[in-house]
Amino acid sequence: MKAQHIADYLGIPLRGESDLEIRSVAELDQAGKDQLSFVESEKHLPRARRSRAGCLLVPEGADLADRTLLLSPRPRYDFIRAVEFLMPAPRPEPGIHPDARIHSSAKIAGDATVGPFVVVEPGAEIESMAQVDAHCFIGSNSRVGQGTHLYPRVVLYSGVQVGNRCILHSGTVVGADGFGYMPWEGRHVKFPQRGRVEIEDEVEIGANVCIDRAALGCTRIGRGTKIDNLVQIAHNVEIGPHCLIVSLTGISGSSVLEDHVTLAGQVGVGEHAHIQRNAVVGGQSGVLNGKILRGGALYWGTPARPMASFQEQHRLLASLPGLRREVEKLKQELALREKLGEN
Amino acid sequence: MKAQHIADYLGIPLRGESDLEIRSVAELDQAGKDQLSFVESEKHLPRARRSRAGCLLVPEGADLADRTLLLSPRPRYDFIRAVEFLMPAPRPEPGIHPDARIHSSAKIAGDATVGPFVVVEPGAEIESMAQVDAHCFIGSNSRVGQGTHLYPRVVLYSGVQVGNRCILHSGTVVGADGFGYMPWEGRHVKFPQRGRVEIEDEVEIGANVCIDRAALGCTRIGRGTKIDNLVQIAHNVEIGPHCLIVSLTGISGSSVLEDHVTLAGQVGVGEHAHIQRNAVVGGQSGVLNGKILRGGALYWGTPARPMASFQEQHRLLASLPGLRREVEKLKQELALREKLGEN
Amino acid sequence: MKAQHIADYLGIPLRGESDLEIRSVAELDQAGKDQLSFVESEKHLPRARRSRAGCLLVPEGADLADRTLLLSPRPRYDFIRAVEFLMPAPRPEPGIHPDARIHSSAKIAGDATVGPFVVVEPGAEIESMAQVDAHCFIGSNSRVGQGTHLYPRVVLYSGVQVGNRCILHSGTVVGADGFGYMPWEGRHVKFPQRGRVEIEDEVEIGANVCIDRAALGCTRIGRGTKIDNLVQIAHNVEIGPHCLIVSLTGISGSSVLEDHVTLAGQVGVGEHAHIQRNAVVGGQSGVLNGKILRGGALYWGTPARPMASFQEQHRLLASLPGLRREVEKLKQELALREKLGEN
Repeated sequence: MKAQHIADYLGIPLRGESDLEIRSVAELDQAGKDQLSFVESEKHLPRARRSRAGCLLVPEGADLADRTLLLSPRPRYDFIRAVEFLMPAPRPEPGIHPDARIHSSAKIAGDATVGPFVVVEPGAEIESMAQVDAHCFIGSNSRVGQGTHLYPRVVLYSGVQVGNRCILHSGTVVGADGFGYMPWEGRHVKFPQRGRVEIEDEVEIGANVCIDRAALGCTRIGRGTKIDNLVQIAHNVEIGPHCLIVSLTGISGSSVLEDHVTLAGQVGVGEHAHIQRNAVVGGQSGVLNGKILRGGALYWGTPARPMASFQEQHRLLASLPGLRREVEKLKQELALREKLGEN
Repeated sequence: MKAQHIADYLGIPLRGESDLEIRSVAELDQAGKDQLSFVESEKHLPRARRSRAGCLLVPEGADLADRTLLLSPRPRYDFIRAVEFLMPAPRPEPGIHPDARIHSSAKIAGDATVGPFVVVEPGAEIESMAQVDAHCFIGSNSRVGQGTHLYPRVVLYSGVQVGNRCILHSGTVVGADGFGYMPWEGRHVKFPQRGRVEIEDEVEIGANVCIDRAALGCTRIGRGTKIDNLVQIAHNVEIGPHCLIVSLTGISGSSVLEDHVTLAGQVGVGEHAHIQRNAVVGGQSGVLNGKILRGGALYWGTPARPMASFQEQHRLLASLPGLRREVEKLKQELALREKLGEN
Repeated sequence: MKAQHIADYLGIPLRGESDLEIRSVAELDQAGKDQLSFVESEKHLPRARRSRAGCLLVPEGADLADRTLLLSPRPRYDFIRAVEFLMPAPRPEPGIHPDARIHSSAKIAGDATVGPFVVVEPGAEIESMAQVDAHCFIGSNSRVGQGTHLYPRVVLYSGVQVGNRCILHSGTVVGADGFGYMPWEGRHVKFPQRGRVEIEDEVEIGANVCIDRAALGCTRIGRGTKIDNLVQIAHNVEIGPHCLIVSLTGISGSSVLEDHVTLAGQVGVGEHAHIQRNAVVGGQSGVLNGKILRGGALYWGTPARPMASFQEQHRLLASLPGLRREVEKLKQELALREKLGEN
């Protein structure tokens, strides 16, 4: 594809060789003559100068000799668009693979794609343009929304609703029983786990993630939220729209995240905690049971506390050797006085 | 089902409308006229008053106008029983799905259920009333006990024994090789992982859990123990009966948990540690290699220590600014004296 | 097999009954008359005396009455070799199971083994002596190297290269999209994840591990590296040869580990961190974004710091009660002086 063609699609000016043939995209360091790369801001221009990329998406006003430049007010965003234009993700042929086992009461849209060895249980629904890859299991009365893509080997237990344009990666399990027991005569008696899971539109969920069904009500993942690999979301958790939840984080039962919350990697959230909108919780932090974290602030540590308080504590610890020396000095002075007084 | 029918099954008195038709169960906040909910103790009665539930399991002596009440000495426990009575888990038809691949030397009980695309290897045994869902893999000489339920896509490697009335959720892998190597000339040489895994009766294991086979002996999970999603149990670990192990916890090789131990979420247990009966280890704690934690106590932090010691340390840290001010004051007083003495 | 036969294979001297029949191997505590066990060093000889093992691999010069001894300069290493000699891992019959679904453009070596319900996509390659167990998914243009073993239910997304003599355990997902988004008008816009994954020779990867494909370049796992269960490796991470990465550890995007690095369990590594050769990071430690850890040292804590600094901090905390008592004593002395001065 010619560079000018990409510029036209993005609606931005080109400077350089408009006929340059672009075959794919690459990072600055690895790009070659027929590849497109991008420079997010002026400070990366030196790296761009060393790059062998033939074509670069750059901030407006950037100057780079001997390259074909696409001048953009938002180079990263336009790069994303350019990749989708230049290398669109392949759409599989619609249709149900003959080795899929679909219950007669399930509904599969005519333009959906269902791969080999998929199992679809009674009453389940796979909507228009959805793609359900090999080895997926779609439990009874579950729903896979329009244009949603389940990579190979996703399991939806019964009664799991997945919205439109979602992506679920391999090995993810949605709707398994929550971890709820009642101590009774030295044993753990299972509390019924009969609730639902609802995943709203445009959610992406990584590989080997676990999202448990509610005990009685509903576990909910809000619209546009993105969840990384190996995350645990317990029963009755409610996650608002547009959150980011990084790998190996665990959220315990009945906790609530409002919208635009970010949990970094390996964060632990206790039961019945409440994290307000725009809060950011740093990696490996632990939010205690029942704790409320106010919105718009950065938290760190276990127990999680505002970043300033965490840093203050580190400063205090670092100042301990000095404090100890001062006390030692005071003791010596006092002892000296004592001696002088005696004389 | 009529409310009186449930009361009779539970063997407890009903107050109110004995003919009330009950269709399902729900949480207090979401229940409607034809639903059963429960109130665990008097302190939740205000929430119960706001609930629209038609029928409520309440503590004996509780008073709520305009409801049908089932008066119980143990409302939560009776609620669990009521759910099982009112909404029994569906039992699948017994039989082997034609798309399962069963080795001729495997033994499958006539009343067991085996789903599509299940693979059962030589010498494996699936006992009476067991349910093995789609995509499960039962390795050679493994055993699935009576009434045990493997949800879709559980893998048992060869020689894994799963007891009776167990539940294993999707994605769980039992019997993979332990992580054991010997450093040798700059490389890691694999130590043989030829031992077994034994899971006793009434164990429940969450989704995407990993339980490794022993190097030579046996990795054991005791009767009635419950394990949450995404837990790692290394080779040669021995877990006693009736333990609770919460999500994202990892237990390293050859560690021992006695009975009724609770590990909260994201706990790490080192190698050859020993945790005695009734000990509770708080979330994100780390138990060092070889450490013995005495029974009946609560531990927290990394390294894990008794709760009181952990809190003491927090108090000390919190008192540091005050200590610093006191030292500053002492310095000033001493300087003042010095000055006065000079005069 | 006769004990002398094993001694001959190992090339080491035997003392005792050369005709002793050895059937299998076991731990010292559990071994019987017809089993081989080993003693790594002199300090374990008392345990060996209590053992009922008929045959023991012991350090040269060790003395144990009434046993057949194999005298080795490296007992653990020779035990590993003996197990492989005595109990070789079974090799499955080569061939493609009729229930595998192989695309016509995929290449499968004649002596490879492909199990039931395996799916192999266009252009994928399974090389000589490779073993791909049931339910595996081999994405388009992926490669499974010579002699590599994929246990049941491994997923390789498209374009994943796995080297020779590797082992991947069940549930592991290689090549899922990295967790990369760009904030845009209150939403998270997906950054293209179109890169590759390359796993070099002799790598072993545990169960339910996630290794994401690079955004544009390549995620790389170096030769001989061993990865435990439930580990997360993010996009564009580069791991050098002969590293050890223990369970539940997460490595964030674009971080680099040089060779022979050890990360203990539940370690978190931030983005763009760089861990140099031979560094060891203790359990539950957290390496901050962009941090460089020098090689050859031991690190612990969050933020991870050299072990000595971590221990110093613990000592300081432990000394706080004493410091507080000293300040109290100084105050009292000063107050006493004041009083005496007044008089």
